[in-house]
Amino acid sequence: MWRDLAPMGRNPESGGYRRFAWTGADADCRSWFQAQAESRGLAYELDRNGNQWAWLGDPAAGDAVVTGSHLDSVPDGGAFDGPLGVVSSFAALDELRARGARPSRPLAIVNFGDEEGARFGLACVGSRLTAGQLTAEKAHALRDAEGISLARAMERAGYDPEAIGPDPERLARIGAFVELHVEQGRALAETPHAVGVASAIWPHGRWRFDFHGEANHAGTTRIEDRRDPMLTYANTVLAARKKARLAGALATFGKVSVEPNGVNAIASLVRGWLDSRAADEETLAEVVGEIERAAVERGERDGVGVRVTRESFTPVVEFAHGLRDELAKLLGGVPVLPTGAGHDAGILSGTVPTAMLFVRNPTGVSHSPAETAAEDDCVAGVAALADVLEGLACR
Amino acid sequence: MWRDLAPMGRNPESGGYRRFAWTGADADCRSWFQAQAESRGLAYELDRNGNQWAWLGDPAAGDAVVTGSHLDSVPDGGAFDGPLGVVSSFAALDELRARGARPSRPLAIVNFGDEEGARFGLACVGSRLTAGQLTAEKAHALRDAEGISLARAMERAGYDPEAIGPDPERLARIGAFVELHVEQGRALAETPHAVGVASAIWPHGRWRFDFHGEANHAGTTRIEDRRDPMLTYANTVLAARKKARLAGALATFGKVSVEPNGVNAIASLVRGWLDSRAADEETLAEVVGEIERAAVERGERDGVGVRVTRESFTPVVEFAHGLRDELAKLLGGVPVLPTGAGHDAGILSGTVPTAMLFVRNPTGVSHSPAETAAEDDCVAGVAALADVLEGLACR
Repeated sequence: MWRDLAPMGRNPESGGYRRFAWTGADADCRSWFQAQAESRGLAYELDRNGNQWAWLGDPAAGDAVVTGSHLDSVPDGGAFDGPLGVVSSFAALDELRARGARPSRPLAIVNFGDEEGARFGLACVGSRLTAGQLTAEKAHALRDAEGISLARAMERAGYDPEAIGPDPERLARIGAFVELHVEQGRALAETPHAVGVASAIWPHGRWRFDFHGEANHAGTTRIEDRRDPMLTYANTVLAARKKARLAGALATFGKVSVEPNGVNAIASLVRGWLDSRAADEETLAEVVGEIERAAVERGERDGVGVRVTRESFTPVVEFAHGLRDELAKLLGGVPVLPTGAGHDAGILSGTVPTAMLFVRNPTGVSHSPAETAAEDDCVAGVAALADVLEGLACR
Repeated sequence: MWRDLAPMGRNPESGGYRRFAWTGADADCRSWFQAQAESRGLAYELDRNGNQWAWLGDPAAGDAVVTGSHLDSVPDGGAFDGPLGVVSSFAALDELRARGARPSRPLAIVNFGDEEGARFGLACVGSRLTAGQLTAEKAHALRDAEGISLARAMERAGYDPEAIGPDPERLARIGAFVELHVEQGRALAETPHAVGVASAIWPHGRWRFDFHGEANHAGTTRIEDRRDPMLTYANTVLAARKKARLAGALATFGKVSVEPNGVNAIASLVRGWLDSRAADEETLAEVVGEIERAAVERGERDGVGVRVTRESFTPVVEFAHGLRDELAKLLGGVPVLPTGAGHDAGILSGTVPTAMLFVRNPTGVSHSPAETAAEDDCVAGVAALADVLEGLACR
């Protein structure tokens, strides 16, 4: 399975993947999913939002146990983020059958469409539409970097964009959703455990910091006459790291834009985007507040105006405690750990009991061609997922 | 004169000027120059490199006193940088005639082409070609942001790009070149003097700092697992300011580029361009060396590799001491001050005795629509230039 999927959407230059929603690489991955479902005698379904399902047992019976993840990628992403969950789902089903387990509840494997949002800028489009967290109207209006709308991209890929929208009947069939995912950090790497259970998704947000100074000649303007916003930006980058470290949170400036961005010109405007996440919303608000205060204070010294705009915010997701504890028990006391990343499981958790399993990532690297997991750990992940499915669905 | 020139190449949105070499706005300014020359009965000449000359007296007589500047601008530049020198030259000639002064040496006014280098990225193209500091071959290869070569741009503007090259005969006619320019700082603003004389152009250079880290997920990578080059960059920006301040030099990061420049991605590469200038080359080398050391030291803490490339370097220009002292004496003890900016006068100073006059800039702002000079100070500049021309050419 893994070998079949490996060449799809791979960029030979970087070794990373470019599996963007509704592209040829995405279609290849979807064909692969359908073939895997059919080769196992599972009932294949494509829902109105382009999510793919493979059913064992009667979907209409309700209280189904569903597992799966996504097959799309970020630009030059790794091989594991998403696909490991889908491949492990099929492998776990094979393992269940090999064990001779007899499901008493319907089982399904799902591939959610456009999880990464690499093409249209919004993550988890497939699950958001299904859960009613994104309207068809807003989805239709999403555009990629070339100006192609999501609706047009779906049409070109042979899908009906008019069909998209909330799908409460489909979600009502689900009694539990479990997503297996490669860990995107090194918490498990420092334990003897190959697999962990998710406790929560940290609340997170994006803030745009605009630093307004004064454009001037870099070669003639005396230091005391400058209003250089690059200094205020630089100080804020360092303050963000410090405040986050002290609070046990995360704060990152990874995107910058500068005007006029000339070698011999003091900048008039520096824009920096802050991505910040913390274990709880109160800590997050405190950290961002402290970073903003540090920016404004330094701005006063530099003669630079600071304006902060919150561009997005996602509250904390607490995975269903009952299901989480059941998984931890079924797996015999594996670590329970939070994550800073969003997932389809986070979207669904508002509607159905949801849990996540993480597979150890030795380097912690994610969203990069260097993302990896040891083969033994992947096998342990499949065994753990099989244990979970057996425990939940075969009693 | 000033009123006629004001609308040419003005961007109505910013109020700044976009007079780029070989564009329509440039052609308008050139027509204006020719009309000014002809209306005064001066002999108009266009040289092989597109520089315009207006002669009073016989150019072939030699030992001419030449004044002038440039009419092109940086993007959204101010009204004074360049044009003040050309307009003041014509006005000073009018003043000389009103005084009834009789030149004993030929006098000329020059408009050097493409001083700012806003379009093709290299400053002082007109004077560099003339002085043999830029070969025709290299000039032909210069390209603008749209890929149009300098040669093609000259052709389109009706000039012959094959004609360009060194012009030693023309320079041999010049006994002294004096350029009047708005000050690009506030040194005169803190004195009672409207006009000053230049001592030197500080040595300056551009260095590209490449900070190599590791791309990773901003939401899941623990602080201790990060190799974030944005931190090293930020620390280097602050170190540059501090080292420059302590040494009485200038150091500016005004241009940045980031990869992948994503809001939720730790950067893999941050490139920052340092512009640094100092009173002498030793101090400049020390300051840049200290900034580089600070970058490397911080890089070691951040797990970030630092590579520094010198992209350009211009040695110190000492204006001719005899001419400088003569001007200061003619003007009755005005301040003598250095500048950090390059000028055509700096290019010519290697070949002919060259001096500069600066007119007070109340805010010090330059290369911006806010650039200004008081009318009284501009009038004082014209009077000072007339005094200089009279003193040099009419004895």
